[in-house]
Amino acid sequence: MHVHVNAAVSVDGKLSTRRREQVAISGTADFARMERIRAESDAIAVGVGTVLADDPSLLRHDENRRRELDKDGFPARVVADSRARTPPDADILDGPATTYVLVTNDAPTERVDALAAAGAELIKAGEERVALPVALDALDARGVERLMVEGGGELIFSLFADGLVDELTLFVGSIVIGGRDAPTLADGEGFVEDFPELDLRDVERLDDGVVLSYEA
Amino acid sequence: MHVHVNAAVSVDGKLSTRRREQVAISGTADFARMERIRAESDAIAVGVGTVLADDPSLLRHDENRRRELDKDGFPARVVADSRARTPPDADILDGPATTYVLVTNDAPTERVDALAAAGAELIKAGEERVALPVALDALDARGVERLMVEGGGELIFSLFADGLVDELTLFVGSIVIGGRDAPTLADGEGFVEDFPELDLRDVERLDDGVVLSYEA
Repeated sequence: MHVHVNAAVSVDGKLSTRRREQVAISGTADFARMERIRAESDAIAVGVGTVLADDPSLLRHDENRRRELDKDGFPARVVADSRARTPPDADILDGPATTYVLVTNDAPTERVDALAAAGAELIKAGEERVALPVALDALDARGVERLMVEGGGELIFSLFADGLVDELTLFVGSIVIGGRDAPTLADGEGFVEDFPELDLRDVERLDDGVVLSYEA
Repeated sequence: MHVHVNAAVSVDGKLSTRRREQVAISGTADFARMERIRAESDAIAVGVGTVLADDPSLLRHDENRRRELDKDGFPARVVADSRARTPPDADILDGPATTYVLVTNDAPTERVDALAAAGAELIKAGEERVALPVALDALDARGVERLMVEGGGELIFSLFADGLVDELTLFVGSIVIGGRDAPTLADGEGFVEDFPELDLRDVERLDDGVVLSYEA
């Protein structure tokens, strides 16, 4: 499986404000770029924090690009959600795309059942936290060869920690968000040694910012 | 006064690890760039957090460039240090350059006196926190026309919040540091509206990363 992280951050590396309110960091050209990557992907993943903060549907994508690639229907959606906290009425469970929810074996049965009843396909892996290598293998077995990851910082950090990221594209916008408690591209515990090293492949100015493309 | 913030961050916007241990984010070309900006500056500022974590001397600069500009001696050093926590034996108080310590009127007299005895020139401004506009005016009155700011995230956020930044150059390295508690380019409370908007003037690949140059 190819894992492609794509995100937009402020000059100071923030995904949103300390209140987790979304901010217009990029513009129309970057949105088009994002929707193109979605169209090229078999599934689009977010963490449950993003679902709870933004309630995204993840349905919009570049339909022409998808037709061009002869890919059927919508990219599936994936929520990394150790304790099954996704609300059964979340937009990510609505609409014509399949939604996989990655939970642990310890997740409360009642909440897992409610998600299944709401149409989610559950994938169980790990105990306290979702075992991402196992869960991604399970997605791969269901035909997800290209996985796009849109955030948030907890999921992205975990993917780097498990060595699962193949590609990162980052739009760096030209506003300052600030805040020691605002979410960043990679949160989690953080590394103190053996920092993942990426390979900067391309730099392109776009909208009022710049897109940095890395391979891992 | 012209205020130029210069820093090196990881892909995910961190200045150092959650332990505040410095990491080699940039390389020799970026160090040379940084020492050139130092040489062009009348003073180099850091926050007290940086003094406590790294004990920098801030003496190294591009001597040829300084001669070229006919600037005398070393750039002065400035510590933004509301409560006068700079240790009197800190390296920033040592050596041939003048050191200004910006404290509040409320800072403990004993610690302020110890800093003065250690050779610091004290500038008092504000009550709970240093009033940066007043303190920078006082520096300006002492001949500081070009102030370089090297961090950390608390000082840089405060300068943006007070609208005092004129220029930002940011080296974005190609490692991931991660960590929800790791210091970022702009920490502090963070903005929730009226985000400072910068103007991206230049993008240049350097070492294994990229330098983004902004005007505010």
